[in-house]
Amino acid sequence: MIRVSVLYPHAEGKKFDMVYYCNNHIPMVKQKLGDACKDMNVDHGLAGAQPGSTARYVAMVHMLFGSTEAFQNAFGPHAETIMGDIPNYTDIEPIIQISEVKM
Amino acid sequence: MIRVSVLYPHAEGKKFDMVYYCNNHIPMVKQKLGDACKDMNVDHGLAGAQPGSTARYVAMVHMLFGSTEAFQNAFGPHAETIMGDIPNYTDIEPIIQISEVKM
Repeated sequence: MIRVSVLYPHAEGKKFDMVYYCNNHIPMVKQKLGDACKDMNVDHGLAGAQPGSTARYVAMVHMLFGSTEAFQNAFGPHAETIMGDIPNYTDIEPIIQISEVKM
Repeated sequence: MIRVSVLYPHAEGKKFDMVYYCNNHIPMVKQKLGDACKDMNVDHGLAGAQPGSTARYVAMVHMLFGSTEAFQNAFGPHAETIMGDIPNYTDIEPIIQISEVKM
């Protein structure tokens, strides 16, 4: 199993429309990825380790796939549509990471 | 529900002992946090978005709690033990984030 994480770093002056992200972007991504995506979690950053500190990431999405190939096969044909929707909710450049799920 | 994420940034020359982390540290943390921790996922970074690129984070752990208070009450009494174990597997300073689980 692999997890694909998309992390949106907090930065002064940048926008992130959480309502559009949850109500439009994520449902569209789910529909495009289909059954290849076994699970999807969306987080909204609240704080860092210290009370009152700013969360490093405004938003994070974690998606579970059987393998890197399964992700690439599901994502590839829809990459343009999915990436093209990003400006509708943010001007932050996300960090993308593929991880092996250890547990 | 909130998710507490602990992210270990990749950096040249830094160590991360994944075997110790998975076999010793994480089981100890699970035992200390008890039922307050509803779920725990451990990721080992494989790659960034581009094939062959380095993952931003060597390791990530995501832990689910009912509330920030539930996390603080579970973690507080064991903070010293848990944090004191970090040098046994890494010299990386982790980034900690508390997030609201949107989905």
